[in-house]
Amino acid sequence: MSKTVDLNSDMGEGFGAYRLGDDQAILKIVTSANIACGFHAGDPEIMASTFADAKAQNVCVGAHPGYPDLWGFGRRDMAFSPAQIERLVAYQVGAAMALSTYAGNPIKYVKCHGAMGHQTYHSEAVASAVCRAVKAVDPSLILLSIANGQQDRVARDMGLVSKAEIYADRGYDETGFLIARSLPGALLKDPQQAADRILRMLAAGGVETCEGKTVATPIDSICVHSDTPGAIEMAARVRALLEGAGVTVQAFA
Amino acid sequence: MSKTVDLNSDMGEGFGAYRLGDDQAILKIVTSANIACGFHAGDPEIMASTFADAKAQNVCVGAHPGYPDLWGFGRRDMAFSPAQIERLVAYQVGAAMALSTYAGNPIKYVKCHGAMGHQTYHSEAVASAVCRAVKAVDPSLILLSIANGQQDRVARDMGLVSKAEIYADRGYDETGFLIARSLPGALLKDPQQAADRILRMLAAGGVETCEGKTVATPIDSICVHSDTPGAIEMAARVRALLEGAGVTVQAFA
Amino acid sequence: MSKTVDLNSDMGEGFGAYRLGDDQAILKIVTSANIACGFHAGDPEIMASTFADAKAQNVCVGAHPGYPDLWGFGRRDMAFSPAQIERLVAYQVGAAMALSTYAGNPIKYVKCHGAMGHQTYHSEAVASAVCRAVKAVDPSLILLSIANGQQDRVARDMGLVSKAEIYADRGYDETGFLIARSLPGALLKDPQQAADRILRMLAAGGVETCEGKTVATPIDSICVHSDTPGAIEMAARVRALLEGAGVTVQAFA
Amino acid sequence: MSKTVDLNSDMGEGFGAYRLGDDQAILKIVTSANIACGFHAGDPEIMASTFADAKAQNVCVGAHPGYPDLWGFGRRDMAFSPAQIERLVAYQVGAAMALSTYAGNPIKYVKCHGAMGHQTYHSEAVASAVCRAVKAVDPSLILLSIANGQQDRVARDMGLVSKAEIYADRGYDETGFLIARSLPGALLKDPQQAADRILRMLAAGGVETCEGKTVATPIDSICVHSDTPGAIEMAARVRALLEGAGVTVQAFA
Repeated sequence: MSKTVDLNSDMGEGFGAYRLGDDQAILKIVTSANIACGFHAGDPEIMASTFADAKAQNVCVGAHPGYPDLWGFGRRDMAFSPAQIERLVAYQVGAAMALSTYAGNPIKYVKCHGAMGHQTYHSEAVASAVCRAVKAVDPSLILLSIANGQQDRVARDMGLVSKAEIYADRGYDETGFLIARSLPGALLKDPQQAADRILRMLAAGGVETCEGKTVATPIDSICVHSDTPGAIEMAARVRALLEGAGVTVQAFA
Repeated sequence: MSKTVDLNSDMGEGFGAYRLGDDQAILKIVTSANIACGFHAGDPEIMASTFADAKAQNVCVGAHPGYPDLWGFGRRDMAFSPAQIERLVAYQVGAAMALSTYAGNPIKYVKCHGAMGHQTYHSEAVASAVCRAVKAVDPSLILLSIANGQQDRVARDMGLVSKAEIYADRGYDETGFLIARSLPGALLKDPQQAADRILRMLAAGGVETCEGKTVATPIDSICVHSDTPGAIEMAARVRALLEGAGVTVQAFA
Repeated sequence: MSKTVDLNSDMGEGFGAYRLGDDQAILKIVTSANIACGFHAGDPEIMASTFADAKAQNVCVGAHPGYPDLWGFGRRDMAFSPAQIERLVAYQVGAAMALSTYAGNPIKYVKCHGAMGHQTYHSEAVASAVCRAVKAVDPSLILLSIANGQQDRVARDMGLVSKAEIYADRGYDETGFLIARSLPGALLKDPQQAADRILRMLAAGGVETCEGKTVATPIDSICVHSDTPGAIEMAARVRALLEGAGVTVQAFA
Repeated sequence: MSKTVDLNSDMGEGFGAYRLGDDQAILKIVTSANIACGFHAGDPEIMASTFADAKAQNVCVGAHPGYPDLWGFGRRDMAFSPAQIERLVAYQVGAAMALSTYAGNPIKYVKCHGAMGHQTYHSEAVASAVCRAVKAVDPSLILLSIANGQQDRVARDMGLVSKAEIYADRGYDETGFLIARSLPGALLKDPQQAADRILRMLAAGGVETCEGKTVATPIDSICVHSDTPGAIEMAARVRALLEGAGVTVQAFA
């Protein structure tokens, strides 16, 4: 196989005295880091130092905006209108542009977090809001989009560049979307099994559903977690097996 | 007199359902608007609409960063280190750059708010932190600095452009700094008296202290309030008297 | 008519430098004040002073808990579980108990705000969560419940005292619930018309829907607004007409 | 030696998805738990579960109020007036009373956190504010006070019960106050050395300064940390050595 693929992970998700995940370890494995922007997690200190740490490891960085809900870590649905989401995203992307420039490692892309991220998959209105924000603030920024979702399509329609990502350790339902965390099959825990599935998906050119069907999609990036039990081992194994199979792991931007 | 001077005012200082000051009225009077960035006041919705409203009135805009203390409106001292202030300012300036670009009215300058603003006058360390943040994020941004303070000097030393502002309705002590609000003479309430004093200060080339001394300083801008009782009348009178005396009122940027 | 009814209004809904509504004016009209608890609005300073102001006007007070969403003023749906709502309410009721005791005017009841309040009408699970919180913290506290809703029923089933309220200026749909603010008929703007409708509802023993039907309910309290245009005039007129019709206006607790 | 002493530790200092310290482990060692109240740390969910966990281990609980500064973990000085601190404390104590009652383990005492706690040692005005809040809300609550500080004295003068605490692993300066964390001698890292010093202090009836002097004070409780490296081992060793020396370790309330 002579594919090229990116490995991305969420990072900088602490706040003040709090830390989440082992950013230093995961930065040695991934090629792109999605940096929280202070709304669902992150603060200016953590943002600046994480952008700098990523630069030291030669890791590409993106803004990772979310809902203003530190308490719920941005995973809780909140009734924002698309117009409000547009400004929420513009604000956070701007903050990330400034602090990444400050740290000498300017962001190259935007990936939405948690409940907002899921809405960019399902809702054309939310996807359009996010894309309008990015287009107005800096149209050279790439959208990192959940494969097969609304955002991936809307971004291209608006003349933006979108890269499609799949999840290394999440099960897919028959529509090609992530199985809810509360349901069986939502999470793959075995690194070997996860890595093997990724190789099959790269070869097949689509996500593999829990019943073995393939939903076709370009695969530009693979998302690995940094904060689940065994996350570092999972990410390292995925990368090693990809490279062992002849896949080039490098940033998409 | 054939001076040129700018009139600036703080704006966009509501939050969610709250509003403070009559932004629409003051936008018809001033030439520069300092827009709150979401920390001491302001939210992405208010920022975007205030940048747009300023554009509609042809008013120049700047970022107005403050401490992360909505409760205290950024007027309460907080023990941030200069390094933390540097990142606080970079974050907020970035958010303001994005939302002002989004609104079609990109910011041209930065003016610090409240307790942080006062520290940029007194503390070389804080002034340097603010200037380093601006220089790293966008060195073309102008610093709007309290006349005679540390920031005005530090900014120039670092190769940035600084413009000096005086306050239309605040008394000055013998050192050339603002008299604390709790002391007698802190506030001028009569528009005519305030406007006359401004003309004397422009003619003399310095701030006039409460004992009648002049502390020499360039005067590039005059700050008027938007949220005190009689603020709109004060601002309107100041502008009318300045123009009546042959002073050109226009934005410094 | 020889009815007795309470007049209630939301109060203390400022935050820091912000104020909302004319609390001093409305305190002269109503008999019960629902005091925000710091989550959707309010802070410890405003809570303490509003409890004291209510005491000075001999107005009964209650806790007015809401979602932790100052930005959205608690009007935005947020995906909290009933178990989380239970703790959210217990926390805020405790804070209100302490500050009202501190101010010499201990709370007598609890009324939920905004999106949470609406859910206590529609959702048995949310209503039960609120009632469990109140029962665990202080079972002598009364629940002030939207007439005909789940909370009014659940509270009584759990052995708590519930008082039913109607809204002076809101239209009712055919199910007996409030017409959404975005729809026609949601808001009555004429004080005379509102007061006449209240008298009809008191006489009929139920809420009057927009099509003229009556949905039977006890009516213990009438909610008037303090922050809408004309709110003070509306509240004063409602009270005057009630008293003119022989209705005794007094607190239910 | 036949002394009786309490062991206390700060707990429940997570927020949302974040955790700090190993509460389950420390609850098996201490006799009193200071529970964060949602301002410097803690949220209603964590508060309720920590009160319940303490009950399961038969551990006495107190409210641990702090400044509203989650970002700075309440360790950053903020310019609150004593009157504002009075209401800040009343609010948090009320929330803790409600959630501890809800969890079946009502609080027995109040201990201030971080920067506010330090001010209760140095400032009579702040100490008085805290004591007035406690006295107004529930005068049966005990004040847990830093030994030799203003609060210990003021509380007794106001007719409240105050218990004095020393720190197991912090150095004391010649005035009998804690050596600032940034200075040498601030932290004892060896459990044996810390425990030996505690035994000497209990025997001598006072805190031992870094130069070996004793500043006399009653010692009712010993504070151990839950979140520093080696904290659990330190706490366990301190308890074992105290009990080995014949000291009875039990809650003061």
